[in-house]
Amino acid sequence: MVGGGRDAFIGAVHRIAARIDDQYDLVAGCFSSNPEKALASAADLGVARAYTSFAEMASKEARRKDGIDAVAIVTPNHMHAPVALQFLKRGIHVICDKPLTATLAEAKKLAKAAEASGVVFALTHNYTGYPMIRQAKAMIAGGELGDLRLVNVEYVQDWLTEAVEASGQKQADWRTDPARSGAGGSTGDIGTHAFNLANFVTGLTLDSLAADLTAFVPGRRVDDNGHVMLRYQGGAKGMLWCSQVAPGNENALRLRVYGTKGGLEWAQEDPNYLWFTPFGQPKRLITRGGAGSGPEAARVTRVPPGHPEGYLEGFANIYLEAARAIRAAKSGTTVPEGTTFPGLKDGLEGVAFVDACVRSSNRNAAWVSLNL
Amino acid sequence: MVGGGRDAFIGAVHRIAARIDDQYDLVAGCFSSNPEKALASAADLGVARAYTSFAEMASKEARRKDGIDAVAIVTPNHMHAPVALQFLKRGIHVICDKPLTATLAEAKKLAKAAEASGVVFALTHNYTGYPMIRQAKAMIAGGELGDLRLVNVEYVQDWLTEAVEASGQKQADWRTDPARSGAGGSTGDIGTHAFNLANFVTGLTLDSLAADLTAFVPGRRVDDNGHVMLRYQGGAKGMLWCSQVAPGNENALRLRVYGTKGGLEWAQEDPNYLWFTPFGQPKRLITRGGAGSGPEAARVTRVPPGHPEGYLEGFANIYLEAARAIRAAKSGTTVPEGTTFPGLKDGLEGVAFVDACVRSSNRNAAWVSLNL
Amino acid sequence: MVGGGRDAFIGAVHRIAARIDDQYDLVAGCFSSNPEKALASAADLGVARAYTSFAEMASKEARRKDGIDAVAIVTPNHMHAPVALQFLKRGIHVICDKPLTATLAEAKKLAKAAEASGVVFALTHNYTGYPMIRQAKAMIAGGELGDLRLVNVEYVQDWLTEAVEASGQKQADWRTDPARSGAGGSTGDIGTHAFNLANFVTGLTLDSLAADLTAFVPGRRVDDNGHVMLRYQGGAKGMLWCSQVAPGNENALRLRVYGTKGGLEWAQEDPNYLWFTPFGQPKRLITRGGAGSGPEAARVTRVPPGHPEGYLEGFANIYLEAARAIRAAKSGTTVPEGTTFPGLKDGLEGVAFVDACVRSSNRNAAWVSLNL
Amino acid sequence: MVGGGRDAFIGAVHRIAARIDDQYDLVAGCFSSNPEKALASAADLGVARAYTSFAEMASKEARRKDGIDAVAIVTPNHMHAPVALQFLKRGIHVICDKPLTATLAEAKKLAKAAEASGVVFALTHNYTGYPMIRQAKAMIAGGELGDLRLVNVEYVQDWLTEAVEASGQKQADWRTDPARSGAGGSTGDIGTHAFNLANFVTGLTLDSLAADLTAFVPGRRVDDNGHVMLRYQGGAKGMLWCSQVAPGNENALRLRVYGTKGGLEWAQEDPNYLWFTPFGQPKRLITRGGAGSGPEAARVTRVPPGHPEGYLEGFANIYLEAARAIRAAKSGTTVPEGTTFPGLKDGLEGVAFVDACVRSSNRNAAWVSLNL
Repeated sequence: MVGGGRDAFIGAVHRIAARIDDQYDLVAGCFSSNPEKALASAADLGVARAYTSFAEMASKEARRKDGIDAVAIVTPNHMHAPVALQFLKRGIHVICDKPLTATLAEAKKLAKAAEASGVVFALTHNYTGYPMIRQAKAMIAGGELGDLRLVNVEYVQDWLTEAVEASGQKQADWRTDPARSGAGGSTGDIGTHAFNLANFVTGLTLDSLAADLTAFVPGRRVDDNGHVMLRYQGGAKGMLWCSQVAPGNENALRLRVYGTKGGLEWAQEDPNYLWFTPFGQPKRLITRGGAGSGPEAARVTRVPPGHPEGYLEGFANIYLEAARAIRAAKSGTTVPEGTTFPGLKDGLEGVAFVDACVRSSNRNAAWVSLNL
Repeated sequence: MVGGGRDAFIGAVHRIAARIDDQYDLVAGCFSSNPEKALASAADLGVARAYTSFAEMASKEARRKDGIDAVAIVTPNHMHAPVALQFLKRGIHVICDKPLTATLAEAKKLAKAAEASGVVFALTHNYTGYPMIRQAKAMIAGGELGDLRLVNVEYVQDWLTEAVEASGQKQADWRTDPARSGAGGSTGDIGTHAFNLANFVTGLTLDSLAADLTAFVPGRRVDDNGHVMLRYQGGAKGMLWCSQVAPGNENALRLRVYGTKGGLEWAQEDPNYLWFTPFGQPKRLITRGGAGSGPEAARVTRVPPGHPEGYLEGFANIYLEAARAIRAAKSGTTVPEGTTFPGLKDGLEGVAFVDACVRSSNRNAAWVSLNL
Repeated sequence: MVGGGRDAFIGAVHRIAARIDDQYDLVAGCFSSNPEKALASAADLGVARAYTSFAEMASKEARRKDGIDAVAIVTPNHMHAPVALQFLKRGIHVICDKPLTATLAEAKKLAKAAEASGVVFALTHNYTGYPMIRQAKAMIAGGELGDLRLVNVEYVQDWLTEAVEASGQKQADWRTDPARSGAGGSTGDIGTHAFNLANFVTGLTLDSLAADLTAFVPGRRVDDNGHVMLRYQGGAKGMLWCSQVAPGNENALRLRVYGTKGGLEWAQEDPNYLWFTPFGQPKRLITRGGAGSGPEAARVTRVPPGHPEGYLEGFANIYLEAARAIRAAKSGTTVPEGTTFPGLKDGLEGVAFVDACVRSSNRNAAWVSLNL
Repeated sequence: MVGGGRDAFIGAVHRIAARIDDQYDLVAGCFSSNPEKALASAADLGVARAYTSFAEMASKEARRKDGIDAVAIVTPNHMHAPVALQFLKRGIHVICDKPLTATLAEAKKLAKAAEASGVVFALTHNYTGYPMIRQAKAMIAGGELGDLRLVNVEYVQDWLTEAVEASGQKQADWRTDPARSGAGGSTGDIGTHAFNLANFVTGLTLDSLAADLTAFVPGRRVDDNGHVMLRYQGGAKGMLWCSQVAPGNENALRLRVYGTKGGLEWAQEDPNYLWFTPFGQPKRLITRGGAGSGPEAARVTRVPPGHPEGYLEGFANIYLEAARAIRAAKSGTTVPEGTTFPGLKDGLEGVAFVDACVRSSNRNAAWVSLNL
């Protein structure tokens, strides 16, 4: 692992996610850019191979017989690319937090390098790991909604309602700093999740978007709210809303999709439920593992219906699916059928989405395409 | 009453709404443009003074000693203005269904004439009659949300998912005919309700909007879906979504408003509940008449908390408040404090909203202002 | 109308319910046992034929050519029988608030007299008027749940959490006085509603019950909470909970029924929804007037799905159905097919239910049968 | 681990729960009473120290220097006691699935032996591990509900609606066999969870209960539904409903508690929410980790509010708290303040609860006390 030391948030999530299905052992890490904190964090975690430089870690681990198979990158956004490049060029598989990078140029460079290297590259757009999201994707792919017309996706939070970055809160600090987070604020931090989730579930490809971004909190250097209209190839249209200044919303990621034959509705905070609304019939509530829930959900679920799974299990599913791919890569076998996890294409599109939102908003919400 | 004969929908709603609080008697009517249906409908309803021409009704009723005090206009949109003009010029108060008219030019003309006439003019933007909407308006006016930043309003239906107008369904027929409905489809039929509700609750004034309208159903001549980004004077921003092609949605009118200090969320299909989300505190569920529900809600409520009121009671509240104004006008007294109902200004803004949406959409979602 | 003057609650509800469908005119009344209040209330309501004695009202109205067809009785419970007897013996139809009487002896006497008189006798167990309750009843009668096994019904309030009767609150005052309310407190006031609703929907007949009643508030003379286990003829079993001391509950009447093939769940505070849970299939949410909602619901509904109907409309449905029976009685025709409203049998069972609860509780929750 | 081999359900849950917080390594196991299955399961799990006899495992592990610190027992109920006794007499700590044993006599014997041994004994009444349950317990202990009056707890399922045991379904097979499951069916399997949860949260002690148990499915040898009335010491009363034949219910464990000052409501299927209803104030929705959620919840939570935790995290909390106690026992230090997990007392009460339900039901729902 690179990043994820003391005071970090997402690193601990990755570690639990990796443990749940017993597919990974954490044996080495460079847990902070601060050497002291890096070593102290390693001690906290009982990790013997503690590094203070990620480059050193990559080179040394690559040379060990028992070196790591894969690295998890959980640094602030601007460090994803430099770190990833060190590992993938040595053939070490990469599991990287999202967004792929802080800038589009970097993202393109990284994607190219990663593709060339042939390593497994998993990007933790973790919400795609929820079983009912897999179910939704399968239902749409199976034609149960008919031709898609409408996508409504939103990711709404409230934790940046006030200028917490001014008080030194670590998470707010780097997330509102364009140098570390990228040009997008809410768009980069959560809008990318919303955009990715809609793409993942619907299978649609964006044609163009029109975005109106705002920094509501005085002095904030990146957007804390984004209103985006979407046009997909093939004629479907959508709206995307991301916000970090809407009091009462914690992690309200919500997706609604409608087609000629029916609709689907899902909310991340209640992830074990999926509403299916076939036109002209009563609404149906499909539960994870319950009646109407199919094999695509079952392959990423652990406990029976009515026993809720949550965020950590969804996250673990990315690790689980990536493990299947990494094992196949190591053994030279084919990846098991149905293995699905977000990767370079998703990462590239996510960074391009933020870039397009910023470009559009700077031109008064003109329609722009992703610059891929 | 003009309109509202056999096969009509909204006329019966108006009649119940007028009866609930015992403030009106239905004594005269021209219930259809079809003379036979007009008379048959009058007979159905036990209304003795049955007319086959609304102009004749206006002139005869104006001359009777016991002539009507007020007329309810429940015709298709394009007939609102011609009918209203006949009555208001004779000093008969008007309760008119929304939108005010089918075109902006008509709306301006009617508004001017109505204002000059001095009659009470109530427009049945009925959703403003819900007690918890009154509560929300009062809380925002009282500063409980701080400075407003965000408005998210949507009115989503599914009944036009297929081309029902092709099968002669009466409601769909005129609502998808620009000559009778106006240039807007979903924008005119339900988008205006959403727009009006947001204005009513927040007290904000629109600066400009950018709209992307679509007719998804092949052959449909008006929009059946509208995506709209909003910019309000003072810096608040919003999104408005209206749709008639989202399967599983019946009358999903939903409003969310967020400010620097808190938020409010309300849904028309569950109208007795209002979520209040003060920043940094647990969410609170205010119920109609329950703890935290104030006098502005109480003035338009009839039964205790936990006994749900619905659409008809909300609609009746417009009639009740209009009755207060009409009585005051008749007796030359002042209107009771707190009397609130939508009128010409709302009607004009509503038609201007549709006009602006159509203009913006025709210019690829360029930002436009209301042409008031 | 007898009762329902100033300060009363349920009288106003009856009046609105009677108006909604335009089947009744309020032309005479004895609105209070206090003569001054009776006359003042009549003046408030614009009712010309104002009486200060219900016996006088009955005899005079019976002699008038334009005398009332039906009387609504909305007095405290102990006066239902004396008033009803005066009217029904003169052939005036009766619409009476529940419970039928304050004591079982009275109830039996009244039921006998009413039956002998041949008048229409409607008891406003108003919750049976909700469209989705009609839908539930029809589905069970149609076998969609298979053989019934389980009934879980509860009516939970919080308004008597503290000793409000001590402060002179009128509603609490008579409801906690056994002389006026009957031996049951929460059992009589709301437990009867719950019991009746379960019977109405399921069609089951009680075999026996075991009740544990409590007066939690010090000094209270009647129960404010009842726990009841139910055994129905044919083997189904149930639980009934009524409480007036459960903070956070307004009028939480909730019914759940399960059979060999599926279940149904309904809540009065959200009455437009009915959950249908066929075993082994996804749960379905049936909405009033929406897909899956049948003719039994449609006959008592007024507005389209998604426009909520509430308590007053449900109440009005009792008046509407009673009007159909009264018209038939007056004209000597048969009552229209499907006409359904609670009457003497329900009233008798309700009072017998309270009586049985009290008897059982006094014997330490021994099993007892209704003493019918 | 003893039990939990191929085809088992709860064993896998225990293993994940043990891994989540990285406090345990699975190094030895006797995974089945069938030797072949035991060894095959060990191979599946990569566990080197594979045993075919739990007694052998206990004795051999006790002798190893690197022998296990604790054993997880996940066998059918009737084997809990024999297995536990083998380990605890050798000083190996025990984490045992619930109920403690299949019979009360066994439970008493085991409890005595365990207490004498001084080992840590954790019983996985896992629902007590949910953060919002900890929150509820703390609020009640802190007096926020005032004096408790009412408890309503239910655990409702549908998976035994039909006679699945007849088809050889392994989970149904042993759970409906009194020899392996104990005299209670639904009461033992899920009623104990409900009873334990109510005790845990409220801190109340049962005085007596009256139970009406039923086996609805023809041929079933244990109850599949239980209706229970509860009387607690100090005057609070309650109802408990457990059922496995209510279609549409998956694991609907729901707890409601009311006192003189307010109420709390929680549902296991949506475990991140806790309703708090202070009397006379709007209802508040407390979310795990959100505003109003205190330190007792925080000590057993891993991710921020709005990122749902579920069943596995709740289960893991039992393992986490037990690990704290086991570490303290090993090092001879005091257990960290606030460490809370169910143990022998809970286990004994649970088995006594089932025993009392069966005794009461056999005496036509007479009131009985726990035979402790």
